Amino acid sequence: MDLHQELAEMGARAVAAARQLALLAPRRKNTILQAMADELDARRARLMQANNEDMQAGKDAGLSSAMLDRLCLTDSRIADMAKSLRDVAGLKDPIGARISRWLRPNGLEIVKIRVPIGVIGIIYEARPNVTSDAAALCFKASNAVILRGGKEAIRSNTAIVEAIQAGGEKKGLPPDSIQLVRTTERQAVTELVRLEDYIDLIIPRGGETLIRAVVENARVPVIKHYKGVCHTYVDESADHEMALRIIENAKCQRPGVCNAMETLLVHEAIAAEFLPKVAQRLQPLGVELRGDPAARQIVPAMKEATEADWYAEYLALILAVRVVPSVQAAIEHVNTYGSQHSDAIVAAAEPAQKAFTQEVNSATVYINASTRFTDGGEFGMGAEIGISTDKLHARGPMGLEELTTYKYVIYGKGQIRE
Amino acid sequence: MDLHQELAEMGARAVAAARQLALLAPRRKNTILQAMADELDARRARLMQANNEDMQAGKDAGLSSAMLDRLCLTDSRIADMAKSLRDVAGLKDPIGARISRWLRPNGLEIVKIRVPIGVIGIIYEARPNVTSDAAALCFKASNAVILRGGKEAIRSNTAIVEAIQAGGEKKGLPPDSIQLVRTTERQAVTELVRLEDYIDLIIPRGGETLIRAVVENARVPVIKHYKGVCHTYVDESADHEMALRIIENAKCQRPGVCNAMETLLVHEAIAAEFLPKVAQRLQPLGVELRGDPAARQIVPAMKEATEADWYAEYLALILAVRVVPSVQAAIEHVNTYGSQHSDAIVAAAEPAQKAFTQEVNSATVYINASTRFTDGGEFGMGAEIGISTDKLHARGPMGLEELTTYKYVIYGKGQIRE
Repeated sequence: MDLHQELAEMGARAVAAARQLALLAPRRKNTILQAMADELDARRARLMQANNEDMQAGKDAGLSSAMLDRLCLTDSRIADMAKSLRDVAGLKDPIGARISRWLRPNGLEIVKIRVPIGVIGIIYEARPNVTSDAAALCFKASNAVILRGGKEAIRSNTAIVEAIQAGGEKKGLPPDSIQLVRTTERQAVTELVRLEDYIDLIIPRGGETLIRAVVENARVPVIKHYKGVCHTYVDESADHEMALRIIENAKCQRPGVCNAMETLLVHEAIAAEFLPKVAQRLQPLGVELRGDPAARQIVPAMKEATEADWYAEYLALILAVRVVPSVQAAIEHVNTYGSQHSDAIVAAAEPAQKAFTQEVNSATVYINASTRFTDGGEFGMGAEIGISTDKLHARGPMGLEELTTYKYVIYGKGQIRE
Repeated sequence: MDLHQELAEMGARAVAAARQLALLAPRRKNTILQAMADELDARRARLMQANNEDMQAGKDAGLSSAMLDRLCLTDSRIADMAKSLRDVAGLKDPIGARISRWLRPNGLEIVKIRVPIGVIGIIYEARPNVTSDAAALCFKASNAVILRGGKEAIRSNTAIVEAIQAGGEKKGLPPDSIQLVRTTERQAVTELVRLEDYIDLIIPRGGETLIRAVVENARVPVIKHYKGVCHTYVDESADHEMALRIIENAKCQRPGVCNAMETLLVHEAIAAEFLPKVAQRLQPLGVELRGDPAARQIVPAMKEATEADWYAEYLALILAVRVVPSVQAAIEHVNTYGSQHSDAIVAAAEPAQKAFTQEVNSATVYINASTRFTDGGEFGMGAEIGISTDKLHARGPMGLEELTTYKYVIYGKGQIRE
């Protein structure tokens, strides 16, 4: 059987599972999630064994230590995966809710009801915990899921999917609700994202190269973010101490993630006073500063920023710094070079706050807070399937509701159209 | 300048316009819409002249009389276009509304706000009124629009866009808010739908061939429906007279549109009594019936339905008829052969109603009403930019709200992530 046919058959089985999933009662789904968690706990030794094989193969293949760390399962990481499944069981069920309802003059009652999307494909990289997290969220929203993880984690992912599917089936999980693409051929991604007859949505999670490859080939709708080039703009009206705390947090608390700050914009009226404080605060933490000419005139120790720096997602302890003449210039910079992910203004003046939040064209815009809060957990969604910088369907952190769609049910008494 | 470059420059100008549009106050937008309508009225002679040239060229090219009718502008059709613009002015402005708002334990206030999508591309066929209707709806939701109508209507569409852009500019419409692709080359569609750096959403309106061509080439997200294969299922518990009225309306009131019924499903327990009534009601109206073997045994005058009939969107006075053993079999038929557009059950029994509405996987599901109600106006949206059978972002009739997205604005007091 060729690859296309194999994946199409997985798709057809997922569609059949999705029809059954749409009928499961909320309590049944939660019982199934608990059983999945129990099975992960029960199979800990088997999971560790599979992961050891992946780790050994990874070392042989010369994976970086950062990559090996992401790949590695430990007792506590497996316990965390099981806990996440139980946490998802505790979240409010989104399916079946009435979103709105209205009556027409002819007596028709129109009800807009939240329903599952259907079949969701998740394409991701080396972290095995994404396997169980994504499966749990898709399932809780009554979607079937097809998972395609990185080839480095194939043995771990196979063991995880077997555990949660088997655990769930004990309590009535429809077969094929959670499927893993087992071939590690690259071509599988290309085939998967073209299965528009079976898959309703693709969510790619990973680096820009992976996501561009998905979009380039996709026929199925994709929700994604390419990268996070996040800004903090410090207005002339800012509280300096607050701004420094936010800058340090946004840059240094976890520099390798998409909501970390990459570029600092400072109003020219305070630059001479404020930029030396920034340098004093960040240099001891190992941050490399790259400034425009105006910034380097104030802090000569800064390296020179080039045009490429304004577009850069460093994911490292590097910060681009630019002096701007006004909040309008800051907005213009963010809308030109940013990735519409997360951008912050630190300002006491309301007109500057208002202009920034109205005109910055990003999924999440912060006033006097760190960009690091762009996260499903921090937003109170309980969990997150990803972050979107798209404009359709879902923007910003995506929780359970973003894994649903709606349909209209119209109740009549024999009405016909005149 | 080559075609790609020309369209990319239109896209860049549309992005600039969209930024200005996002800042227009609701009252300003309504004044602009009124001025657009006034200018259409004032230029009636010029529009008629342009349309006469299109009509002459269409006759020379041998367009069908149905096509020529769609293309033709009359005094009253121009007056209707102007009236539609004024009606859109009267609709509630969707932009800036707070969709939701919540407080986090750390004091962060998260506000979800409705914002424009940005730049929308509309690809359509011969009807010139789509030009002004689509432009008005996109504008009211503060989006820039790039229009690509059928080549048969190019002179009419050019005159309409010139009129509404010029009328609007008198009251402050940003230049390039409403642009028309003036080349009639087919390749322009392919180029347009790949402009992901400039266009946020493509809405194709037309036949399945047009829409498949768009999806095949698109990098920009597309919202669409391919076709409307709509069903009416008559349950054993149905009121026969109600069912006959609904069937006649859904099939005959306007057979050429996407929400007209194409297939009738009848429960076997009532088929022997009910199907002769259907034939008696529809045959005098010129409807050709095509039945499965069970239906033809009851009404031998029916033609034979083949497998292809269950998938067919006739858009004509033809009706496929099938006898089914249960509501479950009806659901299975609809989910297998339908297009997830609009499907109805006629039934008095609640269990049948409930199963049908829960399990039929369509954008709009009717109980005891005609499928012909799937329409923005009939839903009370005031106007409609199209109908979606997709599952992301928008399903069913799409009004103004469906032309918007949201962003999160987060108000802090210096919060950082721990």
